Amino acid sequence: MDIKYAINYIVQQQAKMQAFSHAANMLYFDSLTTAPKGGSEEFAQSMGVLSEAEYNLLVNNDMEHALDYLNEHLEDLDPLTAAQVKELTSQLNKSRRIPVEEYVAYEVLRNKAESAWHEAKYTNNYPLFGDYLARIIETCKRFSDYYAPGEDAYNVQLDGFQKGNTRQALDEYFSVFRRDILPLFKRISQAGDCIDNSFLFRTYPIDSQRRLSSYIMDVMTLDRKHCALAETEHPRTMIFHKNDVRITTHYYPNKLHASLYSTIHESGHAVYELNTGDALKGTVLARGISMGMGESQSRFFENIIGRSREFIDFLFPKLTELFPEQLHDVSAEKFYQAVNKVQASSIRMEADELTYSIHIMIRYELEKMLFDDALHTRDLPEAWNALYKEYLGIQVEDDSHGVLQDNHWSHGSFGSFPCYYLGNCYGAQFVENMKQDFDVTTAVREGNMRPLIKWLTERIYQYGKSIDAAQAIYNCTGTSFNPEYYNRYLIKKFGDLYGV
Amino acid sequence: MDIKYAINYIVQQQAKMQAFSHAANMLYFDSLTTAPKGGSEEFAQSMGVLSEAEYNLLVNNDMEHALDYLNEHLEDLDPLTAAQVKELTSQLNKSRRIPVEEYVAYEVLRNKAESAWHEAKYTNNYPLFGDYLARIIETCKRFSDYYAPGEDAYNVQLDGFQKGNTRQALDEYFSVFRRDILPLFKRISQAGDCIDNSFLFRTYPIDSQRRLSSYIMDVMTLDRKHCALAETEHPRTMIFHKNDVRITTHYYPNKLHASLYSTIHESGHAVYELNTGDALKGTVLARGISMGMGESQSRFFENIIGRSREFIDFLFPKLTELFPEQLHDVSAEKFYQAVNKVQASSIRMEADELTYSIHIMIRYELEKMLFDDALHTRDLPEAWNALYKEYLGIQVEDDSHGVLQDNHWSHGSFGSFPCYYLGNCYGAQFVENMKQDFDVTTAVREGNMRPLIKWLTERIYQYGKSIDAAQAIYNCTGTSFNPEYYNRYLIKKFGDLYGV
Repeated sequence: MDIKYAINYIVQQQAKMQAFSHAANMLYFDSLTTAPKGGSEEFAQSMGVLSEAEYNLLVNNDMEHALDYLNEHLEDLDPLTAAQVKELTSQLNKSRRIPVEEYVAYEVLRNKAESAWHEAKYTNNYPLFGDYLARIIETCKRFSDYYAPGEDAYNVQLDGFQKGNTRQALDEYFSVFRRDILPLFKRISQAGDCIDNSFLFRTYPIDSQRRLSSYIMDVMTLDRKHCALAETEHPRTMIFHKNDVRITTHYYPNKLHASLYSTIHESGHAVYELNTGDALKGTVLARGISMGMGESQSRFFENIIGRSREFIDFLFPKLTELFPEQLHDVSAEKFYQAVNKVQASSIRMEADELTYSIHIMIRYELEKMLFDDALHTRDLPEAWNALYKEYLGIQVEDDSHGVLQDNHWSHGSFGSFPCYYLGNCYGAQFVENMKQDFDVTTAVREGNMRPLIKWLTERIYQYGKSIDAAQAIYNCTGTSFNPEYYNRYLIKKFGDLYGV
Repeated sequence: MDIKYAINYIVQQQAKMQAFSHAANMLYFDSLTTAPKGGSEEFAQSMGVLSEAEYNLLVNNDMEHALDYLNEHLEDLDPLTAAQVKELTSQLNKSRRIPVEEYVAYEVLRNKAESAWHEAKYTNNYPLFGDYLARIIETCKRFSDYYAPGEDAYNVQLDGFQKGNTRQALDEYFSVFRRDILPLFKRISQAGDCIDNSFLFRTYPIDSQRRLSSYIMDVMTLDRKHCALAETEHPRTMIFHKNDVRITTHYYPNKLHASLYSTIHESGHAVYELNTGDALKGTVLARGISMGMGESQSRFFENIIGRSREFIDFLFPKLTELFPEQLHDVSAEKFYQAVNKVQASSIRMEADELTYSIHIMIRYELEKMLFDDALHTRDLPEAWNALYKEYLGIQVEDDSHGVLQDNHWSHGSFGSFPCYYLGNCYGAQFVENMKQDFDVTTAVREGNMRPLIKWLTERIYQYGKSIDAAQAIYNCTGTSFNPEYYNRYLIKKFGDLYGV
């Protein structure tokens, strides 16, 4: 073994891993977009073979030897290779610490749990899902102990979605959030229902909505040579590689804002991934840093930019061109107010910008209790409903519209929800610094996203996974994370809007 | 090694091969339908990794040992396992006889040749492609010698598309064809241009054409749980597995018959693959027998059924419902005549049913000469044009509309064209026997394809690749292949239509 050989080996393995993940993502994307339903069994079989092949490229003796050798010579490696070695070692350690039969059993459990969740949601029957949830949590805790023996299991989950994320840090951030934002929400609720958004629910022809999405892609600089738009039940971004990213949306004839803002949101994910550096191509570093950093981009463009007065001023002429009848009695100002209307809702996916993070806080508190055995899955619906009453003042209609609304837990994705909150906070902190470097407001009013994307590319996107979240935040702000920016942003925006 | 172990091994390898081919086909399908163009380099890389993985599943020592062992115990195997062993052994022998570096060099050459062909076609510059063609042929001949030392190289090519197909047999079949059909074509040409098909070139809205394709899929019994329709530049059928087959079409606003008949044609391919037996799933036998047998089904439904008077009688009310203005002055009889109008054309893909096989015969004769060194690739355009003049009486406009029109040769697909002719012949022979078993005419007049598909499934489809073409023909006819049926069919149909 020498350095050149070992580097060559890990480069080749990563290229193959990329090919298998490309293929698996493509099968998955097809299953969401065009696949006939009757092929689901063979789809699952092929996915299994591809994921096993990808696993075997990472978890094998040659890879272990190569990484052991390179870890012993880290100081001789260029920074990008060193970052690959670190990331591969981390992935390999995680994978090999779980006994294969337990991993397979967990995959089976997750599949069953997702089916049970689906049925429970559509029949409003939580008990169908409750036992599966308990077993998922138990497995997550057991796996946490394999990954990081003796560590707090919930912290291990959090770390999986963003390296270094901990409950200690989040407790502090959420206490800052709670301190300012719950009172702000209360003041707004007391101010009464003064914003009319009913025109958003008029009939908007799907064809014109499609043209709007295409226009949004242009504004977001999404080059059709590297990005395409499809339609799925739930909007999402699929990253095959930096030269091929697909975003999806869902058109509702009676909800103009749904596809408009989901297209901006997914475009935010897409610009990140499309602007990772060429040097990272084919390696494990050729992706965004973490879920939190990814959401910071999607939610930045969706909310901080997309729901700003400047952006609405820019967009409104296009909207009236596409929907002259539907918007004949609406002004840009009325549109701005409507898409920012604060309204407590039981459904996270329909939440406004202000209450969204409250939905997240509720989930975060419940996840901690579940992992601490302070809450039995049997009693989860009751606890869920109590927190919705306490924080948002609303009575959850039923479990389908309550604890069963999201599918994250059926996948075992505990610790992912807080990333949406972190993403919100990052965006608010970044934009303050961005404004010191150039005139963001004017660029947005002109619909010119290029300087924003350039600024973010220079500080975050180009590095892919070769830096961590803390480094990205430092690159953008010259300092470390501070949750106060987001509070200030919300207080200013919604205080002004509601005069509170 | 024991039998159980060896069988288990080849079953598992085939399941994995199926998964990789599923994934590769999906990437390819995506590249034809929705992929943004800028990802072509990574697409090629991923395809390379997947095809190497599939190759390694087949070509390795364990597989060789398992197949050697099973070949020694063929008499102890059930027929399906024996057929798998035979097919795998044949594939393995082919693959391992070519030195890997020569295979890789050939893939590079094919890619370059296809690009050169593309440019040559679009700039009408045959010499750009001629040298590549010479090198492709030279490589094919060299590979033939690896596969089957001492055998006639063109026969080896033919055998690759349909086992057992030879030039000796084809020479005989085409002499029968030439004997009757060239005179028939001459009589029709002399009868003059008495059929008006100009209404087919009116403006047919794409949306209504899409509804027509969907209706055709229903008529062809294509269950949407297992089959979906997409749009590509060139119509084709993609078989992922028997529970997921995609067909594609291309809509031209001014050519109603193009999408109508391509949808029927691809549906014919689809019903074959969708009706292979469940016992073959995940094995190398889970596909149609050969290109000739595949084309027999697509061209049977496209021409013998789809261009029959009964089918037009059935379809015409639907056509007038979808295109009331365009067809207001057209009768079912006029429509029948129009879609059967005989008209010599320089383009195979636009040929009518009668002249189609003449285009094939020209290519067959040229392929033989090229492989026998009786024709230099430099002189191919001249030879091409001379045969078009001789057989079809037309002057080829230029090489783009002549020798460069098809891409088959740029891929090295020599010996595939004759399969279209064989497919035409098989269909004509099958339908004669089908008519002895049930009232085909009445079923078609009612748009009821089920009894036809059932008859073909019982005799051909269910067996997949576990039987050969001769067996399928025997199952359908109780005898062996006879090219006279097709002549009789053409003489009757077109003799009646033109009164000659």
